[in-house]
Amino acid sequence: MIFKINSRDKECKARAGTINTFHGTIKTPIFMPVGTLGTVKSVQQRELKNDVQAQIILGNTYHLYLRPGKDIINKAGGLHKFINWDKPILTDSGGYQVYSLNKKRKITEEGVVFSSIIDGSKHFFSPENVVDIQRNIGADIIMAFDECPPYPSDYRYAKNSMEMTHRWLKRGIERFDSTEGLYGYEQTFAPIVQGSTYKDLRQDSAKFIADQDREMNAIGGLSVGEPHEMMYEMTEIACDILPDEKPRYLMGVGTPANILESISLGIDMFDCVMPTRNARHGMIFTSKGVMNIKNAKWKEDFSPIDDSLDCYTSNNHTKAYLHHLFRVKEALGFQLASIHNLTFYLSLVKEAREHIIEGDFCVWKDTKIKEMDNRL
Amino acid sequence: MIFKINSRDKECKARAGTINTFHGTIKTPIFMPVGTLGTVKSVQQRELKNDVQAQIILGNTYHLYLRPGKDIINKAGGLHKFINWDKPILTDSGGYQVYSLNKKRKITEEGVVFSSIIDGSKHFFSPENVVDIQRNIGADIIMAFDECPPYPSDYRYAKNSMEMTHRWLKRGIERFDSTEGLYGYEQTFAPIVQGSTYKDLRQDSAKFIADQDREMNAIGGLSVGEPHEMMYEMTEIACDILPDEKPRYLMGVGTPANILESISLGIDMFDCVMPTRNARHGMIFTSKGVMNIKNAKWKEDFSPIDDSLDCYTSNNHTKAYLHHLFRVKEALGFQLASIHNLTFYLSLVKEAREHIIEGDFCVWKDTKIKEMDNRL
Repeated sequence: MIFKINSRDKECKARAGTINTFHGTIKTPIFMPVGTLGTVKSVQQRELKNDVQAQIILGNTYHLYLRPGKDIINKAGGLHKFINWDKPILTDSGGYQVYSLNKKRKITEEGVVFSSIIDGSKHFFSPENVVDIQRNIGADIIMAFDECPPYPSDYRYAKNSMEMTHRWLKRGIERFDSTEGLYGYEQTFAPIVQGSTYKDLRQDSAKFIADQDREMNAIGGLSVGEPHEMMYEMTEIACDILPDEKPRYLMGVGTPANILESISLGIDMFDCVMPTRNARHGMIFTSKGVMNIKNAKWKEDFSPIDDSLDCYTSNNHTKAYLHHLFRVKEALGFQLASIHNLTFYLSLVKEAREHIIEGDFCVWKDTKIKEMDNRL
Repeated sequence: MIFKINSRDKECKARAGTINTFHGTIKTPIFMPVGTLGTVKSVQQRELKNDVQAQIILGNTYHLYLRPGKDIINKAGGLHKFINWDKPILTDSGGYQVYSLNKKRKITEEGVVFSSIIDGSKHFFSPENVVDIQRNIGADIIMAFDECPPYPSDYRYAKNSMEMTHRWLKRGIERFDSTEGLYGYEQTFAPIVQGSTYKDLRQDSAKFIADQDREMNAIGGLSVGEPHEMMYEMTEIACDILPDEKPRYLMGVGTPANILESISLGIDMFDCVMPTRNARHGMIFTSKGVMNIKNAKWKEDFSPIDDSLDCYTSNNHTKAYLHHLFRVKEALGFQLASIHNLTFYLSLVKEAREHIIEGDFCVWKDTKIKEMDNRL
């Protein structure tokens, strides 16, 4: 993986870059649509390419490990071939999902024993076998196995958890560096900064992660319920320590405003289920604000969802039609809303990149955030 | 509407024709995907055009009348504009749906009072206002309001019902001929042969319908549970009486084999929910037979669904991937299976047309039906 910074904003820490991987180039800042089970919900692969213009998508190790399972993915020749997606893929490590299970898992120094949400069967994830699983999936970018503590966490728990995540990271790196990709191309391994909402822990963790000298770095354990200001504070602390010349990935973030603010702190990569999940609930992001398409006020509105967005949905359909589709619960509504929201997110980061290059990112960002903040 | 017969098979009554409407040309025999609520379930309009190659789709008057309702469709400028579909549309009259309500409706000579499935509110459909509703929807082809008796029906009920359907037809024609399309193009009005499974009634009804001298004719009340042989017998009786120089539409039919057999009896147009409904249950039609994609035998099959079909699904995805999507209940599975089944249906009638023109339809039909009859 090669990262090049093409341009920097003068007033903030935003940068526009280019990541080269075996499966293609990613222009940063970038948003990665979430394809948990080998599909971005309700959206076809050709739509991700042609409409949404996604440059990289995300898969979830935990879900893919349970279904379809390692054997099927391996026999298919990796996840890219299994789902027919020839651009880059990033997989999370399953850490977040395993901890979300709460009572159905047990964490020890060795790793995590958990029960399958499908059939209750027992499974074990360790820093080592999570590397193996991701080698088998064949993602271009694979994530370290970490513990993601809940918000709020007390200081002691957060510190112990972070220290274990660091020990796990060393084990993961050892496994990664002593193995190779299975499908004829290189993968990269990304460590994750933890430390909950404690400044000193975030500093310690960022230093530890920076010292590992990997090709990119991630910040985890945020956007889990803490106030936005706290998230920005933690992000800034980590960004200022993590090496400038390597991509920084803020995991699980966020709203359009969260993304723009975090870009200004030096973040290059984002993922979040928000655009697709909210789409399925009729929540539509537009350049003029957020709308609930199920609201009766759109019933007779024959204008496009967002006439300033070049998007299949807005170019072809009206608010009134989308309102109708949601009212009668037709699948096409979820499809059109998902395509729209993802196109909006990808368009937003593309625009951010353009403004970083043009040199007016900060002014643009503040205006944009204000405009998008409306409730339509 | 102008219908031209381009070619006739020498050994059976199959014919290849061309229907010209304001919204474009339809090459017959043709299958019409069902878009009940202004959307063919899980399939986008551009996919209907580019992948499925649909030439005309169907809408349901009953459903569209309840939601989004007449006002919205009228304000949109008709159904074509509301859903953004610029090719022909046919709407049924709501007769079949209203009768399916069973206890929630009351039939009199005047029309039918029924309760909405949405909110229980009372509504009234008559031969006249069903024309008005379809004028408002703006379908290119609108259907007469008929009674569709269940199978089996006793002779007396079937005869009385048919006679009322005939009286309703006269009233519908009067309303249609004394009104005009609302959106600047002509519509055509199609009467429906009834008569349950009684030969003499089917003959009487076909004669009555033929005498009305409309631009096309339909056969209804079949494919409601009667044996296939009985359906073919009733279809043949009607076809032999209905004028040769006008399109014949067999409503609600059917399986791929039903369609080929009925083409050989002189049918030109078909509609059925089967390809889309079955797709959502994982039932896939292929040139080599029917398969249930949820079956474990497809788990590791990395070949296309149907390698002899030029279809987005088969060209891009494997049985194993589709199996996975159905197993985890992902929307993409329903989408890909629906696109596949519809492409298969449209490809089947296209191939039938080619064989009629080439002059070997009958031989081809028998071989094809045998091949498709396998359970994969």
